[in-house]
Amino acid sequence: MRLLRLGVEGSLRPAVLDDAGGYRDLSAITADIDGAFLAGDGLARARDALSTLPELDASGLRVAAPIARPGKVVCIGLNYRDHAAETGAEPPAEPVIFMKASNTVVGPDDEVLIPRGSSKTDYEAELAVVIGKTARYLDSPEQSDEVIAGYAIADDVSEREFQLERGGQWDKGKSCETFNPLGPWLVTADEVGDPQALGVRLSVNGEERQNGTTKDMIFGVRHVVWYLSQFMVLEPGDVINTGTPAGVALGGRFGYLRPGDVVVAEIDKLGRQRHVIGQA
Amino acid sequence: MRLLRLGVEGSLRPAVLDDAGGYRDLSAITADIDGAFLAGDGLARARDALSTLPELDASGLRVAAPIARPGKVVCIGLNYRDHAAETGAEPPAEPVIFMKASNTVVGPDDEVLIPRGSSKTDYEAELAVVIGKTARYLDSPEQSDEVIAGYAIADDVSEREFQLERGGQWDKGKSCETFNPLGPWLVTADEVGDPQALGVRLSVNGEERQNGTTKDMIFGVRHVVWYLSQFMVLEPGDVINTGTPAGVALGGRFGYLRPGDVVVAEIDKLGRQRHVIGQA
Repeated sequence: MRLLRLGVEGSLRPAVLDDAGGYRDLSAITADIDGAFLAGDGLARARDALSTLPELDASGLRVAAPIARPGKVVCIGLNYRDHAAETGAEPPAEPVIFMKASNTVVGPDDEVLIPRGSSKTDYEAELAVVIGKTARYLDSPEQSDEVIAGYAIADDVSEREFQLERGGQWDKGKSCETFNPLGPWLVTADEVGDPQALGVRLSVNGEERQNGTTKDMIFGVRHVVWYLSQFMVLEPGDVINTGTPAGVALGGRFGYLRPGDVVVAEIDKLGRQRHVIGQA
Repeated sequence: MRLLRLGVEGSLRPAVLDDAGGYRDLSAITADIDGAFLAGDGLARARDALSTLPELDASGLRVAAPIARPGKVVCIGLNYRDHAAETGAEPPAEPVIFMKASNTVVGPDDEVLIPRGSSKTDYEAELAVVIGKTARYLDSPEQSDEVIAGYAIADDVSEREFQLERGGQWDKGKSCETFNPLGPWLVTADEVGDPQALGVRLSVNGEERQNGTTKDMIFGVRHVVWYLSQFMVLEPGDVINTGTPAGVALGGRFGYLRPGDVVVAEIDKLGRQRHVIGQA
């Protein structure tokens, strides 16, 4: 199932994109696609009701992030060998964890703002995991399957000077306004199948910058979710950005983002997001 | 005004502690003390209604965190010279920012759990700032006064091996379950007066471990809030832990926390919290 949220804050419609490319209105099942919906077996209820849901005319409607504001956005750093190499870092021995403020999450096609004072705003196409059930000290990576609701595309936008040259922890360059376009869809885990077999691509103004595959993750999705659950309690609706493949501007082959740039990120089975870069 | 929340999740009562030490029930003004309450001028409404509010029998009621789960908990690292020195770090040239998951926030007297696999769980008494209005690119540190709702005590509990020896960013040792006891009170800014003139003390099993003053912060509260607003959008209900003075176990003079330990943290004008250490 591909779930999404249409419209603007205050009048958002939860919806499902059906196999024929039509939209079904999920409002009869839930007011929103959020942690409570996922925790309350909402995906099963939506699936059961799918054929009875009314059609929804989505024309002209903004696509919002496919999940309401998460309780947290946790990120895995340097999780692709080629990306670690391009940044001059050793591949980590265990997952690198950092966080971004959850009010960075915006719609997949919303404007992304270069922060004031920034000269190194960068893109990072990533497979985002959406948590469906509380995860606390999972016994094994296999148990992760029980707590993953689905997947979405994230652009883990990053200001590299703030992140790396301003005296501290990475979070400083990760939490700026609009820095986490998410979506278009929350695709349920059953529909995605193997999360380690997805192509990840990103272009800027039509020029291909990233073209990787989740097969090259150092720590796969199951491992990451299990690992995180040893250090924090993951809750329904939480989002995990699982790292980015090579090709970011920080690597030196490409330039940083400028106002007016058009960023397109795609992941197999998860759709496509397109955001235009603006200036804060 | 000293605001607090009494009871357990699902049946929390918002309340005010009056000058005579009695409790007043705030339920007629708001269902909860949260970001929406603060954004909607709730403090002014509570103050206006104070004398008309019914008394509340608080005996036997748990004291919860004085604010509903924050949108984010942002932390400032190494913000006291003596603490930077004890950890072997240079005083930072500008604030060090990191984050902890907001589901770490628990009541001031709730049990704090040593994570599984931990041998270095540490305490950090801190002045916590609670944001009352949205702060985005504030023009000056002075403008911070307009967005600060008040202050509370936080214990920024930290697992030092996870934070410093597990290959990455500090966040890994900061977000464990129960790692942010907050309260007992949210004390409004007008009642606190100068936030840079508050004694900060913490003891473990009656032994004094920390005894500092916010006067020794490298970056004061106004500077911190203004600075953060350049890197992220602060929202009503967000919490900022402003750093800890010397005396933490990481400094080497004292031992790490063990199950059964009793931690008492106090800040002038902000009350006192007492939590017993357990094992996850």
